[in-house]
Amino acid sequence: MQKAIYYHAGCPVCLEAEDQILAALDSNKYQVEIIDLREEKAEITKAENLGVKSVPALVLNGLPFHINFGAALVDLKNEVTQ
Amino acid sequence: MQKAIYYHAGCPVCLEAEDQILAALDSNKYQVEIIDLREEKAEITKAENLGVKSVPALVLNGLPFHINFGAALVDLKNEVTQ
Repeated sequence: MQKAIYYHAGCPVCLEAEDQILAALDSNKYQVEIIDLREEKAEITKAENLGVKSVPALVLNGLPFHINFGAALVDLKNEVTQ
Repeated sequence: MQKAIYYHAGCPVCLEAEDQILAALDSNKYQVEIIDLREEKAEITKAENLGVKSVPALVLNGLPFHINFGAALVDLKNEVTQ
């Protein structure tokens, strides 16, 4: 199984993308992990290290793909530390 | 079968996304059409009408998802008419 990680922050853009994109992934090939960066703040740095710059983002086999444009991680970092 | 349309313009960002994203789609659920907007200029307006603003973009069941940021359709339009 290959690994897909879907990073989001609960925004409407994120949820729409989650519904459509994750349903479209081949579940026989990909094990999908869904991470809400508002709830799992420790994952923000891990996401950044994978090249994630905004959410929603889908990481396929370690390669980040940014979907539409929801929220920049920089803004999210500021929000969670306030 | 549901319909997926992948719009691109041959850019490196587009090709990387094409390899990864299209391979990850469930081929039992989705019939995928790949359109190179440099070659099929008449499709640019159709893509715009679907809400596509930049390529690469994946349209799933009529909903557009912009992947990373390759090229704005506005720029592409200018390029093909020059």
